[in-house]
Amino acid sequence: MGSSSPPSIKLAEYLFTRLRQLGVDSIFGVPGDYNLRLLDYVEPSGLHWVGNCNELNAAYAADGYARVKGLGAVITTFGVGELSAINGIAGAYAERAALIHIVGTPPRDSQQSRRLVHHTFADGEYRRFAAAHANVTVAQASIEDLTMAPSQIDRVIEQALYHSRPVYLQVPDDMIDMKVSTANLTAIPTLRVPELAEGDHEEKILSEIVDRIHAAKQPVLLVDGEIRGLNVVSQINQLVEATKWPTWTAGFARGMVNENLDNVYSLYAAKYGTEAEKAYFESADLVLHFGPHLTNTNTFLFTTIPKPEATIAFPRNGVEYGGKLYRDVSTRRFLDKLLSKLDFSQTVKVQSPPPKSKSKPASASSTAAALPDSGAIVQQNFFPLISTMFQTGDMILTETGTAAYGGRLLSLPADCRFFTCVTWLSIGYMLPATLGAAVAYREVLSSSSSSSSSSSGAGSARRRHSGRATLFIGDGSFQMTAQEVSTIIREKLPVTIILLNNNGYTIERAIHGRTQGYNDIAKWKHEYVLGLFGQSEEQRQRNYTRVRNWGELRTAMDKVRVGEDKEDDGEVKLVEVFMDQEDCIGALRDLMDRQIKEAALTKGA
Amino acid sequence: MGSSSPPSIKLAEYLFTRLRQLGVDSIFGVPGDYNLRLLDYVEPSGLHWVGNCNELNAAYAADGYARVKGLGAVITTFGVGELSAINGIAGAYAERAALIHIVGTPPRDSQQSRRLVHHTFADGEYRRFAAAHANVTVAQASIEDLTMAPSQIDRVIEQALYHSRPVYLQVPDDMIDMKVSTANLTAIPTLRVPELAEGDHEEKILSEIVDRIHAAKQPVLLVDGEIRGLNVVSQINQLVEATKWPTWTAGFARGMVNENLDNVYSLYAAKYGTEAEKAYFESADLVLHFGPHLTNTNTFLFTTIPKPEATIAFPRNGVEYGGKLYRDVSTRRFLDKLLSKLDFSQTVKVQSPPPKSKSKPASASSTAAALPDSGAIVQQNFFPLISTMFQTGDMILTETGTAAYGGRLLSLPADCRFFTCVTWLSIGYMLPATLGAAVAYREVLSSSSSSSSSSSGAGSARRRHSGRATLFIGDGSFQMTAQEVSTIIREKLPVTIILLNNNGYTIERAIHGRTQGYNDIAKWKHEYVLGLFGQSEEQRQRNYTRVRNWGELRTAMDKVRVGEDKEDDGEVKLVEVFMDQEDCIGALRDLMDRQIKEAALTKGA
Repeated sequence: MGSSSPPSIKLAEYLFTRLRQLGVDSIFGVPGDYNLRLLDYVEPSGLHWVGNCNELNAAYAADGYARVKGLGAVITTFGVGELSAINGIAGAYAERAALIHIVGTPPRDSQQSRRLVHHTFADGEYRRFAAAHANVTVAQASIEDLTMAPSQIDRVIEQALYHSRPVYLQVPDDMIDMKVSTANLTAIPTLRVPELAEGDHEEKILSEIVDRIHAAKQPVLLVDGEIRGLNVVSQINQLVEATKWPTWTAGFARGMVNENLDNVYSLYAAKYGTEAEKAYFESADLVLHFGPHLTNTNTFLFTTIPKPEATIAFPRNGVEYGGKLYRDVSTRRFLDKLLSKLDFSQTVKVQSPPPKSKSKPASASSTAAALPDSGAIVQQNFFPLISTMFQTGDMILTETGTAAYGGRLLSLPADCRFFTCVTWLSIGYMLPATLGAAVAYREVLSSSSSSSSSSSGAGSARRRHSGRATLFIGDGSFQMTAQEVSTIIREKLPVTIILLNNNGYTIERAIHGRTQGYNDIAKWKHEYVLGLFGQSEEQRQRNYTRVRNWGELRTAMDKVRVGEDKEDDGEVKLVEVFMDQEDCIGALRDLMDRQIKEAALTKGA
Repeated sequence: MGSSSPPSIKLAEYLFTRLRQLGVDSIFGVPGDYNLRLLDYVEPSGLHWVGNCNELNAAYAADGYARVKGLGAVITTFGVGELSAINGIAGAYAERAALIHIVGTPPRDSQQSRRLVHHTFADGEYRRFAAAHANVTVAQASIEDLTMAPSQIDRVIEQALYHSRPVYLQVPDDMIDMKVSTANLTAIPTLRVPELAEGDHEEKILSEIVDRIHAAKQPVLLVDGEIRGLNVVSQINQLVEATKWPTWTAGFARGMVNENLDNVYSLYAAKYGTEAEKAYFESADLVLHFGPHLTNTNTFLFTTIPKPEATIAFPRNGVEYGGKLYRDVSTRRFLDKLLSKLDFSQTVKVQSPPPKSKSKPASASSTAAALPDSGAIVQQNFFPLISTMFQTGDMILTETGTAAYGGRLLSLPADCRFFTCVTWLSIGYMLPATLGAAVAYREVLSSSSSSSSSSSGAGSARRRHSGRATLFIGDGSFQMTAQEVSTIIREKLPVTIILLNNNGYTIERAIHGRTQGYNDIAKWKHEYVLGLFGQSEEQRQRNYTRVRNWGELRTAMDKVRVGEDKEDDGEVKLVEVFMDQEDCIGALRDLMDRQIKEAALTKGA
């Protein structure tokens, strides 16, 4: 007998098997001429296909999915589809969501003969769009040969996992059902994040840091959002609970630590927080800074970055202190070691932490009781009040704009999932991201329920979590990607949309052009949203609520609220809340007030 | 006295002055943090600002505008905005629309210090998005220095005009109101398309071609869409009228020659046209092929490309015949010379042209009278029938999908503007493009009316043209960019949307996956479209019509029709026409039938 052919599997099956192994159970995208044959393999591979209204929305949705499940996937078609998606891919790069962008490309025949097909520039050049994507992804592969295809696929997926960032994969239409070897599947049954080898200097660093921690008198934990991509969220939470040290988060990390703990202060906002918090933070003798993400928007214009001499920072796979950055230190392994080496009987018990400023839902409720029924809604009170509606395990999302600014005032319930934008800030993102995150959360809840179906405890844990997602979004953002509401309805996801109608781009008005026409938008009649996008007339009337004052807000909250006493009906709800077009908080408020003052001076002069 | 400073103008004013000089009267876009100061200068420069719902739609709209007026402009913000627009920019490249994409970028301070600002990847790298755009534009400029700024602006605009393709311009936020020299404005009061010098070989080519034309016995004119970007549409029409030779167009050129002339046959479709047309075309001894655009989708899979030995082709600034391509011959000047040198008394009078297959609206009407009121709508009869509704000077647009396929059966009225996609085929494009084209057409009609307000003839010409645009679009395409209906309503444009509701992506079903779930879409209730997007309840009810059979179609046509006897009310109208999800024509019909047959065989086996 000669050499026998190795066991084989179709290319599409190989790709989808790899994704399924990593917990990808749904794929987002839009069909197109060059990906139809690939799509034939989605559902047979056990994946759920979520067809989006357009490709940008699909990329946004896959990003939202990735932030919940660690990896997401989006499928588009060559040229037109992939370029429509590219801004969503870029956002995943900026904010660390591991995403695989799979592009169905023309058959190799067409490409190699430079045939003038549609979705090209009629110039025989097929590499333009891959070149564009190389600027927004950490790895790229163009499959052209069956032998190397499995390794190419494995390589880009590993890069996505390692960097927690998007990668790009082109699959020609003629190769979809061709056979590739299963050797890689056998050798490595599930792809993993590649691990750093331990460096010679790590023990020394560890011991120095342990000493610093044991010696600290006024310590602070500062948690930032890159910890999610580093997969160290649980280690950080162990440290927060074990030390009971005052803990603040950056905007990017909200929801990653339990804000209901006494020592967790939510967002550190420097001059936009309380004086007591700022004073404590600034005079700390040790700040452990996890997963720093130091953009202007995530640091209150760089004012929340702790002073270097007090700081031990844990940027991506590195440790920085004493004026030196030690690279190539696995954050995950290092924190594991740190946790086991620390002696929490030696760490300081902070005796006089600053008082917590953030209202708990209960106290917000009592404050809110004073708001008169006929009073106009203002963000400063709106967000604390609406926080009382949340339940343990809720998902909460705040879209870029005054929704995210005001959302800083939200009190988050225990075991919640919270998402906001901090750097990419592409308006329109959060609505499709809500779709993706809600699909992912449904899968998480369903698997945690089914995997421990014999345990009544887990069963009741699941009952506690309705999986409802509440999205806060402004009217300007909403117009960007509104059609994706129809996919949310089609997917039967329990989503509540709180639409802040403040008559245009209020965040831009605050920055510049307060009264300029370019910050106005077309007027929409949002009472038709749910109807257009698929709900029956009866549902539409039941699920849409208009809110113009505190009384109507209380009624609306009662209507959409879910709780022990009120089961979730699973329907999409829309609450339209009218606010003044100049209502905003914090730094935006300062910017807006400066413009108002300048306008008054000009008028007076 | 020392050297005096040259006269100056603010950078933004320079840019907008250049655009205004070239007939750009409206600009499309979305405000963002880094372009707000630039937007301050739009309206003061005499430009109309059209704020779009998102940037992809803005790019599409600017492309539609450019196809009517020769040049369009779109303004986005750094990163998030520009990347959202890139697919629209790419489409303008593929199908030759001259477009300037102006991106407001962070201040030079931020860029040069690699500051970690929002809308970046938090890595200090500011050139990524320009690098992405270099793949889809013919020229790029990043303004960083006031001295060179005017020349940089002039250079990219000239490139856009010359290639009739998009260019990319970055303007930092801190330079908007800084002064630049007016020297260029004085030296070149209006930018023009750069002209080729005359080559030595042109006289010889001209004389050979004149001889071929005079000697032709069975000649054909074949007109393709690149003639628009070459600015030779009127020369081609002179030739069509002077020779009276049988004339066909490619899909890309429909609407560029008057199909109401006896010698104009509309689309040449090879085996999908009549036998008589094909026989005549294929046995021609001379085919003058203007502005060829030879993609699979514009040539019925390359079957409409005339045989080389009979062909004299006029590709972009070149002449090709006798097995040789002469490059660097100005198409425009060459055609001018050809027209003046030809002796039309010597050119053959074609005695036996093939009979015209395309029904004239009148005859379509009589055929259609036979369609029973209760009969289901089918594309084969729908498009001829609805053609009877059009008026002289209408704008008609068919979106990619079965709308564009079926739209080949439309009879176009005189003096119309017709737009369809031929190569880029990005679904969703045509709705925002309708916005842009309708804005441009309004400007064209208004300027032709005001520039000759003393002439009653011109006044009546304008009265003949309502400027109404009729868009044919499928339900799948509509979901991509539907929100832009609100901008059409806000702009008070007379647009009729004929929405072909065939339950999903029928064009994809024909290609592959006839019954696959991925070709389904979310179900929308289109009766709410006009309400959500801004019309009053009364308007919404008046302007929405549902059509399920021929009787309802006739009623709807009568309702939305405009004519001598019925003035245009200027409102946006929506006619939703239900069709079977497998109803299509031509090559799509063949593909669909093949799948139906295969499915039957599989079932039988």
